[in-house]
Amino acid sequence: MDMQELYKRGLAIRKEIFGKEAVERRMEAVGEYGAPLQNIVNAYAYGDIWARPGLERKMRSLVVLAMTAAINRPAEFKVHVTGALNNGCSPDEIREVLLLIALYCGIPASNDAHRIALETFAEKGIT
Amino acid sequence: MDMQELYKRGLAIRKEIFGKEAVERRMEAVGEYGAPLQNIVNAYAYGDIWARPGLERKMRSLVVLAMTAAINRPAEFKVHVTGALNNGCSPDEIREVLLLIALYCGIPASNDAHRIALETFAEKGIT
Amino acid sequence: MDMQELYKRGLAIRKEIFGKEAVERRMEAVGEYGAPLQNIVNAYAYGDIWARPGLERKMRSLVVLAMTAAINRPAEFKVHVTGALNNGCSPDEIREVLLLIALYCGIPASNDAHRIALETFAEKGIT
Amino acid sequence: MDMQELYKRGLAIRKEIFGKEAVERRMEAVGEYGAPLQNIVNAYAYGDIWARPGLERKMRSLVVLAMTAAINRPAEFKVHVTGALNNGCSPDEIREVLLLIALYCGIPASNDAHRIALETFAEKGIT
Amino acid sequence: MDMQELYKRGLAIRKEIFGKEAVERRMEAVGEYGAPLQNIVNAYAYGDIWARPGLERKMRSLVVLAMTAAINRPAEFKVHVTGALNNGCSPDEIREVLLLIALYCGIPASNDAHRIALETFAEKGIT
Amino acid sequence: MDMQELYKRGLAIRKEIFGKEAVERRMEAVGEYGAPLQNIVNAYAYGDIWARPGLERKMRSLVVLAMTAAINRPAEFKVHVTGALNNGCSPDEIREVLLLIALYCGIPASNDAHRIALETFAEKGIT
Repeated sequence: MDMQELYKRGLAIRKEIFGKEAVERRMEAVGEYGAPLQNIVNAYAYGDIWARPGLERKMRSLVVLAMTAAINRPAEFKVHVTGALNNGCSPDEIREVLLLIALYCGIPASNDAHRIALETFAEKGIT
Repeated sequence: MDMQELYKRGLAIRKEIFGKEAVERRMEAVGEYGAPLQNIVNAYAYGDIWARPGLERKMRSLVVLAMTAAINRPAEFKVHVTGALNNGCSPDEIREVLLLIALYCGIPASNDAHRIALETFAEKGIT
Repeated sequence: MDMQELYKRGLAIRKEIFGKEAVERRMEAVGEYGAPLQNIVNAYAYGDIWARPGLERKMRSLVVLAMTAAINRPAEFKVHVTGALNNGCSPDEIREVLLLIALYCGIPASNDAHRIALETFAEKGIT
Repeated sequence: MDMQELYKRGLAIRKEIFGKEAVERRMEAVGEYGAPLQNIVNAYAYGDIWARPGLERKMRSLVVLAMTAAINRPAEFKVHVTGALNNGCSPDEIREVLLLIALYCGIPASNDAHRIALETFAEKGIT
Repeated sequence: MDMQELYKRGLAIRKEIFGKEAVERRMEAVGEYGAPLQNIVNAYAYGDIWARPGLERKMRSLVVLAMTAAINRPAEFKVHVTGALNNGCSPDEIREVLLLIALYCGIPASNDAHRIALETFAEKGIT
Repeated sequence: MDMQELYKRGLAIRKEIFGKEAVERRMEAVGEYGAPLQNIVNAYAYGDIWARPGLERKMRSLVVLAMTAAINRPAEFKVHVTGALNNGCSPDEIREVLLLIALYCGIPASNDAHRIALETFAEKGIT
């Protein structure tokens, strides 16, 4: 496969998961300087790995929430809460991941993740 | 619910996931000194959180593999590779988690996780 | 011991350490969604582990400051600065922990911890 | 060498790298309480290690950007973006480090680092 | 104070805590190449910070066990288990730290720390 | 550019840096199961990012040593010590990175990195 196809496929998947506007806003914000990293994200992350058939998107979302909470990256975690909802995860399923975070990564990691999840739900009018 | 019931329920779940012998060997190895932590593991981790109905065990396993690879705890990751297989995850589904680890936690974390997963599969005669 | 007793004992200890109002505000903020995590915090963290007699509260506070600074969880660290003061730690004793953080976790971790400690002292009128 | 000389030498190097005013503002902000940590920073970090001849300052800056992005300390990373520019690193050279961060520490770490680098460049009128 | 005095004072403290032989063996093992880091350890870590009067050694040991377990550095953690025992910490007090690790850094971190602590106690004939 | 070209270019660069045999042994060891990750390593890591002209290989090596020591991945760090030597870094330049690690990531991280660096030098007959 050609790199440009991979990029196009990945960008399309990314927009399905996070919304066209949000992705375009993000890509504009980082401009030329951020273009090589955006290529990694679009072509390699979404065009290759996320496009693989071996695990459904909903499961990938829960797994990525687990990882981004574990490595303490709140901005990324927040983006993937939105992605998880769009991929069909319920707030209750997300909470199960956050409770496992308390066990395996500690209560402070789970506290932080709860705060961001609740904030994101509130922004979307989910109560 | 009484604490002793929680402990008993958790210990039963834990043995279902990891095997009766492995759990008993582990608990004997840490003896009296490790008893309060074993109480946390049995009663709180397995008796409470893992017993919750909101997410099936197979999904919990993938999520916990993600977390333990992310936080760099190889001994725990290895135990949960066995748990994941017993909970019905295929080696290919586990691999999808490990590829997401490369994206979100970096290639070295994914290399380490691949090594341990392959070693565990080999021990179990899975090729 | 019954789970509800454990929860009640833990909630009482937690309010002694952080103040009744602060704990109630926190629990209200996370509502129903956060209730299972609040159960972990109240019953397991404070009702079980913090209630153990083997180490006095003041020492526990210094140890938890060390951990939360090390794992880079500023919101939790800040809460435990207040807890440490209420448990009888002096700002100078807290500083000794923060200097050890510089040695074992690096200067950036110690810089962050100093900033939060000073901010918390200022909020409490400690100079 | 005497400790006071080490301190003086380090403080001078630190001011060369980050600017006299910025360093003085920082040292005033942490006052008496922060003096022992400032001693570690001035005498040990800049007076000893940064003063060593074995690696030029520009290379040290890139290496420290790598470390502070990897360990997730955004405030420190931001300070060292300024230091890197003053030590002769170009924005493009800094970007190469940030792309390596994506590979070795994961995309979220690289996203965070890009955001801070771009913000710092904008504050300095670098486009 | 002169740097050489700081170094001498620190080396003496270090030998009191970990034993003369163990420290000398360690310093020989890293030789010339490791001398600058050994200077950091002896002069700055033990000659300056550990020599400060604001916190007794026993408390410092518990705090450093917390940090080294939290940041996942088993070799360092093991050395400080010995140091903690020599500084008057009982195995039971050490266990209280390890249980707090389970809460704040997760169960896998506490499992790893228990394993190393028990191994060290066994080497010393403590049962 | 076509993905296969990217892969081929990356694999060639990787063999230049780490040695043909070492790379082939590593790829054989992970077999079919590891092929998708090897594709990430060869095509994306070495074919894309390491192939970029903006920073010389020697500098990239020092930066990657900094990252892999910081994130606590000893197996990866060890591989990159060899890579750094092959890319023209001297043991003394590597040591400067390791001393910066002590400052920014803490002494235990620097101890671990020194141990692995010395072990690797010894294996190669560098004294």
